[in-house]
Amino acid sequence: MENILDHDTVTLNEASDTLRIIDQTKLPNITEFLELSDLKDIWEAIYMLRVRGAPAIGVAAAIGLYVHAVRIEADTLKAFIDKLSQAAVYLNSSRPTAVNLSWALKRMENKALDFLKENKDSKDDEASLIKKLLKILHDEALLIMKEDTDVCRRIGEFGLTLIKKGDGILTHCNAGQLATSKYGTATAPMYLGHEKGYDLRIYCDETRPLLQGARLTSFELSQAGLDVTLLCDNMVSAIMKTGKINAVFVGCDRVAANGDVANKIGTSVVALSAKHYNVPFYVAAPTSTIDLDTLSGDDIVIEERKDSEVTELWYKERMAPENIKVFNPAFDVTDHSMITAIVTEKGIVYPPFSDNLQKIMK
Amino acid sequence: MENILDHDTVTLNEASDTLRIIDQTKLPNITEFLELSDLKDIWEAIYMLRVRGAPAIGVAAAIGLYVHAVRIEADTLKAFIDKLSQAAVYLNSSRPTAVNLSWALKRMENKALDFLKENKDSKDDEASLIKKLLKILHDEALLIMKEDTDVCRRIGEFGLTLIKKGDGILTHCNAGQLATSKYGTATAPMYLGHEKGYDLRIYCDETRPLLQGARLTSFELSQAGLDVTLLCDNMVSAIMKTGKINAVFVGCDRVAANGDVANKIGTSVVALSAKHYNVPFYVAAPTSTIDLDTLSGDDIVIEERKDSEVTELWYKERMAPENIKVFNPAFDVTDHSMITAIVTEKGIVYPPFSDNLQKIMK
Repeated sequence: MENILDHDTVTLNEASDTLRIIDQTKLPNITEFLELSDLKDIWEAIYMLRVRGAPAIGVAAAIGLYVHAVRIEADTLKAFIDKLSQAAVYLNSSRPTAVNLSWALKRMENKALDFLKENKDSKDDEASLIKKLLKILHDEALLIMKEDTDVCRRIGEFGLTLIKKGDGILTHCNAGQLATSKYGTATAPMYLGHEKGYDLRIYCDETRPLLQGARLTSFELSQAGLDVTLLCDNMVSAIMKTGKINAVFVGCDRVAANGDVANKIGTSVVALSAKHYNVPFYVAAPTSTIDLDTLSGDDIVIEERKDSEVTELWYKERMAPENIKVFNPAFDVTDHSMITAIVTEKGIVYPPFSDNLQKIMK
Repeated sequence: MENILDHDTVTLNEASDTLRIIDQTKLPNITEFLELSDLKDIWEAIYMLRVRGAPAIGVAAAIGLYVHAVRIEADTLKAFIDKLSQAAVYLNSSRPTAVNLSWALKRMENKALDFLKENKDSKDDEASLIKKLLKILHDEALLIMKEDTDVCRRIGEFGLTLIKKGDGILTHCNAGQLATSKYGTATAPMYLGHEKGYDLRIYCDETRPLLQGARLTSFELSQAGLDVTLLCDNMVSAIMKTGKINAVFVGCDRVAANGDVANKIGTSVVALSAKHYNVPFYVAAPTSTIDLDTLSGDDIVIEERKDSEVTELWYKERMAPENIKVFNPAFDVTDHSMITAIVTEKGIVYPPFSDNLQKIMK
């Protein structure tokens, strides 16, 4: 069987200037690639979780903004950048919780604004200025993608220091390669450990309602040859009680200044269990997800998604009564008091997080 | 629409001496009744959760044993009772965790053994003795059913004293009318509260993998006109954080002497959340589920069920990779330290459970 990990989760198709993604809503049954250039299609791909995971969303937004930029029609650099900014605002509205989306778009936009400032007295004609800026945006998008791979690898190296051979590791949702450019965040220590013969046992929460753990994490890790066991989210307490879990690694969508972590719905339930059973609970977080402007989890906007994600099965079979009310937040906040450490590409951050996150972000 | 609650969950069809059940695996999409008389079919109906819920399993086993008894061919009372006992052993093997199954079968078998003892010197011919015993078994099965209704009603009355008007109540799995003869156990205070205009807000965990909360509890409660919101199991922490939940009511399959409670997988996760957010956690338990011979939760056999319940959707769509390992316990144990009170038909039992369960069982 073809290994899903041989493909980039998100990339730029240079030949056609299109955003190329694996459509993750179809996995594990169908491996289908999408080539996107229309801004609405890119917005829809993020909103519908065809591309998902905080780092991958950042990369997709950066490349997406670039492929849109290639197609912007404008007579002046100023007009071009205005349209670019509008497109960034629009893409940023696709999902509210992960900070990487706005972080990547802001980075792209800042490149454009800096270029405008630098060239305010330029003698070049507008068309050639736009062409120069496009090259800058192209390189910045690819840099964001490359940095993501490096960041994940370094998170993996730091994370691996927290793991022993033979450990059982539980993860929730997908903070895997399918959520990033490569390695994943929470899965990076697992992939590196596997390369080094650690004989890890990985336990994947299925992660209702969209089953990223069942469909994506257990899929990519087992394709890579790791020993994977799938469980329902409500079994975390039962599995921890057996003593089989030595550590929890999860990804995150936003880390607040006090260490509160927004991540896929259900993460806080895993953390409660881990605390009760004295299992270390680690959050893998690229510094791009650390948002010191957000003081605590209470200030993080939690996306609420549509009822049918809960009431209908993957292929539209009804599994709840018609017209039932539904509570469907996509994320929850895990209180910093339940977090053992936050693993970033710059090192491992321990409590007190209020102080130590500040230090690592300097 | 026809109301599911107008039908008995489990009953004896007197005309044909068959066990009549609603096939709960088809709900909420299809309401289908089964008329069972073959012992293997009855075993399969319990194993496959066509009839489920600790009290309903007890009633189904008692009626099932009776309808089988009607069809036993035996020349002597002794031979008849031997076959009856074999059938009881067989039915008891269908599911290991709920104590009501063995409790109801033991009650039926004891009636037969008592009758044998009383009639050891009887001058009646064997055929008429068997006929007399059949009448006794018939009445005992219906008594178990009737008692269950009374027990649920009384649990509801006691439980209602723990609830205020306008309360938000969270429940897990289905300990509703569909799990009993009538009223349910955990739902009994909700139904009685609804009759008395309490304006309750009910929150149902969907309860993976078999979705009893989504398919059954939210179905029966909304059909009865209650205000119901459905959520995924991993959202319990998020909903409790909002402050909307004033109490948790769950059913149970077995209460150990120290108050540890075996109930549907995920119950202990709800209890952990409730404890963290200071939400009272109540277990509705007919005394038939209290098993003083089981010292603690560690001594309760937890049924492990087949992988496909987790990896395949309700109608057989695959939602996990092929050949993935699965952890699929059907129940978990909630430590007595997380339980606020156990509500029985004889009154509300508070900690210390080791002492107070003994007292109520006297």
